[in-house]
Amino acid sequence: MVVGAGLSGLAAARVLERHGLAVRVLEALDRVGGRVLSATVAGAHVDLGGTFVGPDHERVTALADAVGVRRRPTYDGGDNLLRWRGDLRRYRGTIPPVGPAALVDLARVRASFGRACRAVPPGRPGDARDADRLDATSLDGWLRARRATTATRDLMAVVARTSWGCEPAEISLLHVLHHVARAGGLDRMLDTRGGAQEQHLVEGAQEVAVRVAAALRPGAVVLGSPVLRVDRGERTVTVRTDRGTTTARRAVVTVPPALRRRIRFEPPLPARHRRLAQRWAPGVLSKAYAVYDRPFWRDAGLSGMTVGDAGPVFITVDAGPVDGSRGVLLCFVGGPDARAWEVAAPGERRAGVLRSLAYLFGRRALAPLGYVDQRWAEEDWLGGGPTAVPGPGAVVPLDEALREPVGTVHWAGTETATRLAGFMDGAVSAGERAAREVVRALALEDGAGGGIGGGVGNPGRGAGSGERTTGIEPA
Amino acid sequence: MVVGAGLSGLAAARVLERHGLAVRVLEALDRVGGRVLSATVAGAHVDLGGTFVGPDHERVTALADAVGVRRRPTYDGGDNLLRWRGDLRRYRGTIPPVGPAALVDLARVRASFGRACRAVPPGRPGDARDADRLDATSLDGWLRARRATTATRDLMAVVARTSWGCEPAEISLLHVLHHVARAGGLDRMLDTRGGAQEQHLVEGAQEVAVRVAAALRPGAVVLGSPVLRVDRGERTVTVRTDRGTTTARRAVVTVPPALRRRIRFEPPLPARHRRLAQRWAPGVLSKAYAVYDRPFWRDAGLSGMTVGDAGPVFITVDAGPVDGSRGVLLCFVGGPDARAWEVAAPGERRAGVLRSLAYLFGRRALAPLGYVDQRWAEEDWLGGGPTAVPGPGAVVPLDEALREPVGTVHWAGTETATRLAGFMDGAVSAGERAAREVVRALALEDGAGGGIGGGVGNPGRGAGSGERTTGIEPA
Repeated sequence: MVVGAGLSGLAAARVLERHGLAVRVLEALDRVGGRVLSATVAGAHVDLGGTFVGPDHERVTALADAVGVRRRPTYDGGDNLLRWRGDLRRYRGTIPPVGPAALVDLARVRASFGRACRAVPPGRPGDARDADRLDATSLDGWLRARRATTATRDLMAVVARTSWGCEPAEISLLHVLHHVARAGGLDRMLDTRGGAQEQHLVEGAQEVAVRVAAALRPGAVVLGSPVLRVDRGERTVTVRTDRGTTTARRAVVTVPPALRRRIRFEPPLPARHRRLAQRWAPGVLSKAYAVYDRPFWRDAGLSGMTVGDAGPVFITVDAGPVDGSRGVLLCFVGGPDARAWEVAAPGERRAGVLRSLAYLFGRRALAPLGYVDQRWAEEDWLGGGPTAVPGPGAVVPLDEALREPVGTVHWAGTETATRLAGFMDGAVSAGERAAREVVRALALEDGAGGGIGGGVGNPGRGAGSGERTTGIEPA
Repeated sequence: MVVGAGLSGLAAARVLERHGLAVRVLEALDRVGGRVLSATVAGAHVDLGGTFVGPDHERVTALADAVGVRRRPTYDGGDNLLRWRGDLRRYRGTIPPVGPAALVDLARVRASFGRACRAVPPGRPGDARDADRLDATSLDGWLRARRATTATRDLMAVVARTSWGCEPAEISLLHVLHHVARAGGLDRMLDTRGGAQEQHLVEGAQEVAVRVAAALRPGAVVLGSPVLRVDRGERTVTVRTDRGTTTARRAVVTVPPALRRRIRFEPPLPARHRRLAQRWAPGVLSKAYAVYDRPFWRDAGLSGMTVGDAGPVFITVDAGPVDGSRGVLLCFVGGPDARAWEVAAPGERRAGVLRSLAYLFGRRALAPLGYVDQRWAEEDWLGGGPTAVPGPGAVVPLDEALREPVGTVHWAGTETATRLAGFMDGAVSAGERAAREVVRALALEDGAGGGIGGGVGNPGRGAGSGERTTGIEPA
């Protein structure tokens, strides 16, 4: 049984089915995809959650390929724009022109950050040298201790808002280093060409989830069924929703860490697992899209990529087709500036975003063919986005609990990944890893000496994973 | 209806009943008291949660007086001990002898801290000058920015562990200042004589809860009934537990902020209330007691009060009767040192605590008549203790959501108090405040022009608060 039909849960279910196990995926929302959500706006597919994939995002690209969802390059021509201190400047490459002195400082801090990153072993942040000390401070504390200039700190705040949906003071330095280390370094994490934004999915990222779900056994995915309670037995697990209960031999729980606390486990989880759920809160980041008949900024030699120190929109990316058949501006909205925006009415939110775009790209930006936004913090069953934010002190004692199985309960979700955590790729690899754990555990339990495929896939052994369902109707 | 039979919920229920309303108190645990819990060890009453009251703790002392629970002074004679840098020193008063240079630094930082505190208006931290800046840093960040010495920082860490159950890097500076401001300043918060530790309760603090509960309408308190779901109607609220549902006109929810997220609200709470529950996590602090036939440390001229920089026990207090008829040492256990202790077996925990006591008071401490400990982080339905810890950035946008009613749902619990939040007094005053809100709201709804007592207490108007219960049996 799998709790959550996001990319992680669906990837887990896919692996489990391939091992001949009968799987049920229980999903709270009325859709699959979790933090991946696509929409069609003025004829363009846009991704309101996870969007981009990089060249080393092997698991999610393999999954997309397997279900026939295509990738295309993110537009990367022309000049970027920096909105900075009330001024607008063009630049090329990834380092914004924040002024000569500031650039020297930025280079110094980035070099120091890179060294610190490389010292954190992916998947084992607690084993980093000085792990306790790195965990005891925040990204902001580290920057201040290094006497980073205001410009450097403001730019790192942009990175924090985009990557985690938080301010630099809110997040453990150790987690920041670990996250970036797992993403292959800061450059790779932030770059388009050769980096994590290199490609996006033609049919939309959610289409991967939709197709993986459709390829599962009919009725395997049950929507609109929040899991309220999990009774942990010795060799079984019973999951309760509004619609009934399901018993299986194992559960893979894929919800974001904070949401684990919304499930009542009986007996309760060990204290450190409960602490984890209390200390790894989801970030706050919203996305908006404006879609135009064509990418008119390209005519002016602009890439559509902008970075700013004023809100509500603080980053934009041209997320439209390279052929220019539509103009698609992806806008990130977050940070303290965005608090009023987050609670405003739809019309005001649209007006705020378009004002930002007009400042960057001119008055033509005020009249899109379509507009849509998604405030992840409004999602009751996800809690926020893009990923969980452990505050200072929350990594060393709690990181291991992210993926440490508790009896018959296993864990997935992008936060639990040992590579590319926080990305779609991490979601997929974590789901696959949890599924393999389950397969191994069942094989051991069945006393199958002959490897994974042996006893588990045998339909004679109690209908695969031995699921029994009462009262839950397939969606 | 009240959710939670801690001091806050019981104080609320008491006020509601006095206004003629029929009240049901639903409690997850099998006991009343919440974060107040007493035990009897070798004939001595000991308090494993909230323990002390100060001279200005008016609401909890009034409640204790009303139900006949007596207070007695905390023993305050003799010298204190400081365990510091591998050394043991005697001292008097509240300032530990950390060395002349360190004392100068400590005085400087305390003065600066006091000024900052006085600038935070109790109940309205967001209105403090520079509130955003104070909220963007942690207590640790503030100490480092002031170039506080290691000694000063270590002592403030002791304060953080005792007061909030966290490290200085984990907590918003604004919250620290606001908490201390609401406690009347650092001296009053930390002192015994004239301060928050001046007295404790002869029969134990839980006895207050037990007696208040006993004085409510028979059957009003229902134990062992975690509230799983709250359906918020226009003029009613329906609460669901394993044992059935109860509908009432209003609910007062008193659980710690993080636990609000364990209740499924339909429709969901506004985003900022959900964020609050995700960002105000309970601290981690444990208490242990060793009880001896008599307070032998007093013979050596010692007060029993000690402060240390090594664990597992980092603070002790003589919490026994002044007449010396029993020797009672209250021990605080927390901080990074205590992580191994927290997960150790009972015998190891006892041995660790007694080792600390023997270092302080000699070998005689190794043979108590009785020993007990309480690890609050183990309590699944409380999440931790002593009180909620907002990380950096979690106060300005979220503090108001602590007590802002959402339709028919009102909030109490010590965290919501505008005075002495985090203390037993705050729990009582918050419960009373929430009850008054409900009384006012019902009076308005009933169109009673003639004041609070008017329409609400009238049994003709639908049985008081109009509670209807299905399937919930009184305990």
